[in-house]
Amino acid sequence: MEDSPEHRPVHRETRFDADVARYAARAKGMVASEIRALFSVANRPEVVSLAGGSPNISGLPLDVVGSLLNELVVDHGTIAMQYCGAQGDPFLREQITDVMSQVGIDASPDDVVVTVGSQQALDLVTKIFCDPGDVVLCEAPSYVGALGVFAAYQCDVVHVEMDDEGLIPEHLENALARLTAVGRRVKFLYTIPSYHNPMGVSLGATRRSQILDICHRYDVLVVEDDPYGLLGFEGEPYRALRADDTARVVYLGSFSKTFAPGFRVGWALAPHAIRDKLVLAQESATLCPPTFSQFAVSTYLANHDWKGQIKSFREMYRERRDAMLESLADLMPATTKWTTPKGGFFVWVTLPEGIDSKAMSPRAVTARVAYVPGTAFYADGYGSQNIRLSYCLPPPDRIREGIRRLAAVVEREMELRETFGPLDSGRGEGVEFPGPEVQ
Amino acid sequence: MEDSPEHRPVHRETRFDADVARYAARAKGMVASEIRALFSVANRPEVVSLAGGSPNISGLPLDVVGSLLNELVVDHGTIAMQYCGAQGDPFLREQITDVMSQVGIDASPDDVVVTVGSQQALDLVTKIFCDPGDVVLCEAPSYVGALGVFAAYQCDVVHVEMDDEGLIPEHLENALARLTAVGRRVKFLYTIPSYHNPMGVSLGATRRSQILDICHRYDVLVVEDDPYGLLGFEGEPYRALRADDTARVVYLGSFSKTFAPGFRVGWALAPHAIRDKLVLAQESATLCPPTFSQFAVSTYLANHDWKGQIKSFREMYRERRDAMLESLADLMPATTKWTTPKGGFFVWVTLPEGIDSKAMSPRAVTARVAYVPGTAFYADGYGSQNIRLSYCLPPPDRIREGIRRLAAVVEREMELRETFGPLDSGRGEGVEFPGPEVQ
Repeated sequence: MEDSPEHRPVHRETRFDADVARYAARAKGMVASEIRALFSVANRPEVVSLAGGSPNISGLPLDVVGSLLNELVVDHGTIAMQYCGAQGDPFLREQITDVMSQVGIDASPDDVVVTVGSQQALDLVTKIFCDPGDVVLCEAPSYVGALGVFAAYQCDVVHVEMDDEGLIPEHLENALARLTAVGRRVKFLYTIPSYHNPMGVSLGATRRSQILDICHRYDVLVVEDDPYGLLGFEGEPYRALRADDTARVVYLGSFSKTFAPGFRVGWALAPHAIRDKLVLAQESATLCPPTFSQFAVSTYLANHDWKGQIKSFREMYRERRDAMLESLADLMPATTKWTTPKGGFFVWVTLPEGIDSKAMSPRAVTARVAYVPGTAFYADGYGSQNIRLSYCLPPPDRIREGIRRLAAVVEREMELRETFGPLDSGRGEGVEFPGPEVQ
Repeated sequence: MEDSPEHRPVHRETRFDADVARYAARAKGMVASEIRALFSVANRPEVVSLAGGSPNISGLPLDVVGSLLNELVVDHGTIAMQYCGAQGDPFLREQITDVMSQVGIDASPDDVVVTVGSQQALDLVTKIFCDPGDVVLCEAPSYVGALGVFAAYQCDVVHVEMDDEGLIPEHLENALARLTAVGRRVKFLYTIPSYHNPMGVSLGATRRSQILDICHRYDVLVVEDDPYGLLGFEGEPYRALRADDTARVVYLGSFSKTFAPGFRVGWALAPHAIRDKLVLAQESATLCPPTFSQFAVSTYLANHDWKGQIKSFREMYRERRDAMLESLADLMPATTKWTTPKGGFFVWVTLPEGIDSKAMSPRAVTARVAYVPGTAFYADGYGSQNIRLSYCLPPPDRIREGIRRLAAVVEREMELRETFGPLDSGRGEGVEFPGPEVQ
């Protein structure tokens, strides 16, 4: 093709992705997640979506929030709508330490970095720590958005097995011993200790202590992701890992589930030196996190009974959790198993042998119920016998209807399996590090 | 040190930065910018700061904005405070195409990705394109925040010379020819064609066409950063590079200077395939850009005379530009030179021979005037004879007072130089690619 300007537009617009060869190596790790592809259909009104993880914020006092934001703009608009420091507003950071005291953390506002949701906190932590090929330890299964971040920074994710009480310390130690023996660099353990996404389970005090001890012995950082920590249904919140280890744990928090996600205000609490790096990374990524969002959250915390609001969120989610667990017990085939969450948003279901949750997904959507296939929560293709169900968004009667539809779909799959034999689900044999060829 | 829990806290808290060996290679490129270190003193009320680049938003109608946001929360709060798609709100993206039509761009909302300020757009573009060691071409000088992003992704920045009419096409072609000859991979040209930061100059139509043509011949992408495009003081806005090349140019825009920076709403307009990658990168970085910020900007655009507001911003900035240019002409020593911006925020000053702007900086702050030393805008240590002055924030009388103080400081430096001879400013000899060892 000649280099004349007249020919260029045609030449250019017929190319499909002329930039394929131009992308960075890390861009290969950026692929659409299974959740993402699913959401376009799952959001149709006739479908009961047990797929999403969006909080139900319909209980927020909109008149109060609206009036607070009006005052904020009129009284402090030229500050609230201006740039701020990359670390985030000092007064909000002080309020954040108050929020963290609820999970036993005693911290200085000076060690808090405000981020664009805790997702960005995880992105920045990974950015400053992980070179391509570095190992990140994750629970098996783990948060899909975290796996996306680790893929984008070309980390090797090594999953460590969980049970109904969370991450299994012995498996963590085994994984570290094996990785160390083959000379692999483990940068950190990424964990959601309380009301896990997607498993719904929580670590007890003994395991928390064991896990900190193991990470200390192997000199591995802990990235503690705690978006659901204040959304427990029984007694006091769990004590954060960070409460008992100030130097090894980077704690990630969020207002997305305790107030509202649309402001995108999260944070990282980190030891001084790491905090400094995170501030520089934030400055480079955004100049500063959204000032207005920070002031909005700050004025909400200062002028509204935010603890009372969280209490009412907890009651609403408990009722939905109960509806889901009761419906599962009433309706699902006997060989189905599931976790019993004491907080948070999710139930992790293990389907009867031989059913492939990903293959079943389109048939479930046809039957007007949506879930997330378990494979979305593994970096290594496992999880095909599992599904994540969320009870956060639909009201109890819709949850029951959704489970009724799901049970019928599973029963139909079981009949098919009995007639035609089990499908090849493509699953492997274990979830832990299988040797030096970690992927 | 033993591994007993009792010893751990003491052991840990006495470490300075125990994680130094743990950081990713890219973290080495994250260092505090000169502007950042300067701001803590420059923001004192007795100092006339000609250093910052924050817009003057005191002219915004706070009562109107406050009332709009109140209505937004009351009427649409459960959507405006919820997660949204990673690409950004479709209606806002449509409004953004309307904004871009002001600089001659005809685009589909489908090709727009909303970002956390245009800074994040630049971060995401660099993230998807640049492997460590890839070359990015920048103007000499260039935006300090862009240099920070390129350093964070371990790019090699090659500066291309400018004059009073912007980037010099012949120098761009020479740089590309030399880089190609030594087998270097140039990922893109980063340029601010209109009302350049820090130089204040703009590219005319002929040079724009020449630059597009050169980039076409060398198959190099163009990243066009246009935060000031609508803030020209004379006649019609410049036609964007993107207006004449839909496939090779990624256009970055922002509401920070035309509305308010605190919402952190910017965008990238990119060819389809690149757009897809940017959406995935955004999802990984933040899940979604702040929904509330997007709705706030959207409702402002829909319900307020935003073009009239920009017109009044332009008049306010023109008056300040005039105050600065007149004061410079009246007060600075005869051998000082400066650019004559036709829009935007900045004047680029070349000091008399032998004066080092960085060394002079603390003496200027002592004399209660602040500026940014030219070296901040180069990746390679040049710029020591230059300073960036901004006229965006102080009112005209403060600008005059600031220039009066600055002129006195420069005169004092000249006397010192005459008495003691020129200081070694540590400058090199040119700004272009000096050979294969690009830094």
